[in-house]
Amino acid sequence: MHHHWLELALEFVGTAAFAVTAVLAVTPRGIDIFGIAVIAVITAIGGGTIRDLILGVPVFWSSDLSYIWVALAAGMIVFVAQRQFTRSMIHRLMLHLDGVGAALFSVHATHKVWDLGFGLPLAPVMLGIVTGIGGGLMRDMLTGRPTLLMSRELYAIPIMLGCIFYVLVLSFFPAYDKPAAICCIVFIFGLRSAAIIW
Amino acid sequence: MHHHWLELALEFVGTAAFAVTAVLAVTPRGIDIFGIAVIAVITAIGGGTIRDLILGVPVFWSSDLSYIWVALAAGMIVFVAQRQFTRSMIHRLMLHLDGVGAALFSVHATHKVWDLGFGLPLAPVMLGIVTGIGGGLMRDMLTGRPTLLMSRELYAIPIMLGCIFYVLVLSFFPAYDKPAAICCIVFIFGLRSAAIIW
Amino acid sequence: MHHHWLELALEFVGTAAFAVTAVLAVTPRGIDIFGIAVIAVITAIGGGTIRDLILGVPVFWSSDLSYIWVALAAGMIVFVAQRQFTRSMIHRLMLHLDGVGAALFSVHATHKVWDLGFGLPLAPVMLGIVTGIGGGLMRDMLTGRPTLLMSRELYAIPIMLGCIFYVLVLSFFPAYDKPAAICCIVFIFGLRSAAIIW
Repeated sequence: MHHHWLELALEFVGTAAFAVTAVLAVTPRGIDIFGIAVIAVITAIGGGTIRDLILGVPVFWSSDLSYIWVALAAGMIVFVAQRQFTRSMIHRLMLHLDGVGAALFSVHATHKVWDLGFGLPLAPVMLGIVTGIGGGLMRDMLTGRPTLLMSRELYAIPIMLGCIFYVLVLSFFPAYDKPAAICCIVFIFGLRSAAIIW
Repeated sequence: MHHHWLELALEFVGTAAFAVTAVLAVTPRGIDIFGIAVIAVITAIGGGTIRDLILGVPVFWSSDLSYIWVALAAGMIVFVAQRQFTRSMIHRLMLHLDGVGAALFSVHATHKVWDLGFGLPLAPVMLGIVTGIGGGLMRDMLTGRPTLLMSRELYAIPIMLGCIFYVLVLSFFPAYDKPAAICCIVFIFGLRSAAIIW
Repeated sequence: MHHHWLELALEFVGTAAFAVTAVLAVTPRGIDIFGIAVIAVITAIGGGTIRDLILGVPVFWSSDLSYIWVALAAGMIVFVAQRQFTRSMIHRLMLHLDGVGAALFSVHATHKVWDLGFGLPLAPVMLGIVTGIGGGLMRDMLTGRPTLLMSRELYAIPIMLGCIFYVLVLSFFPAYDKPAAICCIVFIFGLRSAAIIW
């Protein structure tokens, strides 16, 4: 899939936000700089890595390390400027950007799996969800936090609904591929943002 | 490996039972419908997925999604009719069927790995065990339960013994392949059922 | 990479030490012989297995099962002679040997990834770390212990520094490949041993 520059920019913002919210979630537990680097990277690329292993394709970051550099840089910035990021407004902004990342990555993944014709029609939805939440699940298991599966937070359900809707459009109205992708991303992000605000 | 219809039927029953016992194990912890779908699917196909990744072959469900549909349907049925399934008799029946699934999947996996000539003679046993208990281990890690490795329940040891015995027969009496497979499945299931009853 | 006999001997010692320290870490929690075998093997080969899956190459133990036999044997010996191994001196010796293993495996892995030209220059460091600590992380998640990411023990940071230094040498002074590898192994082991002693 060819990346529009806006898409790419949003992806980097999303990657950074994944790393930042991950680090903010684990720092109260007393973790050193090594742990922060590991958690930032795993949260940012873990979901997409599982997806690529299951697809049997090279992991997406092996040919473009910029996602990892972004995650590392974001993790280090939070480590140094932790005070700034725990301020309520910045923290909320980061949660919203994290929602942008989850929306983008899961819809992208759904598209990628669909294009490969892999396990249609279920696998695109499943691997879209894995891409959106897999990194967070790994982070929570590694740091001993209850995973989001056990919380009642509205994080994964918007992703699931968005990916299902996108697959329905790809199945029945393939011509509307692009507008549908944008709609799904906005829908997932919007529902998540609404959940953060209320 | 060509599937006999009885085998296929038992595999679907086993898959459904994996999903049902998984959902019953986690519902007391307060999990929403999304979490239930994820847990049902991961428990049912997680072990076989790890096996296929290690073997370097396409994951078994990419070419036949019926296992996933069965797991999803079973998970949803339990979610709706939870009361029925927590009744002691039904719950026990499900545990026995779960044992059928574990026995079938692990012996099948041992056979599959043996046929591929992968890491003989240890890997068929190891990946047989992974297939039988891997999904349950992932479920427990994701939901914060102690894994079965830490419990003294007789779940994994019958699987290990059955897979070792099956590999011994494949090594020394390859002509008795089929009857040995049936014996091992019955042995694993029998030992597990005995453990449930007592 | 061709193995010198001393290297091979140290690798087996390291593998055994990985299994022994893993079993010593989990036995106080009441685990049966099956659990011990699983934990010994996963701790010993888990990190290298994740590395190979991400690299898309056959898992290293599929063509040479001796690492697994060593891990199983070491696990069983500890199970039988547990009293001997919990004696403070032996336990400390095992921790040092575990450090030898971690140092060897991570530097080896860095070299392997570098030779494959996979995701240079970040991936060799990342997968070196994964190889050194991945098995231990899996052990801790499976047994419900806090992972080393959450502890302030000096375990992973020497590995990270050693792998970074090794990649720097491979990048700028490739002719000094071998002495650099030995230096890095000694450095990681030395820092870890110092941490055990103090």
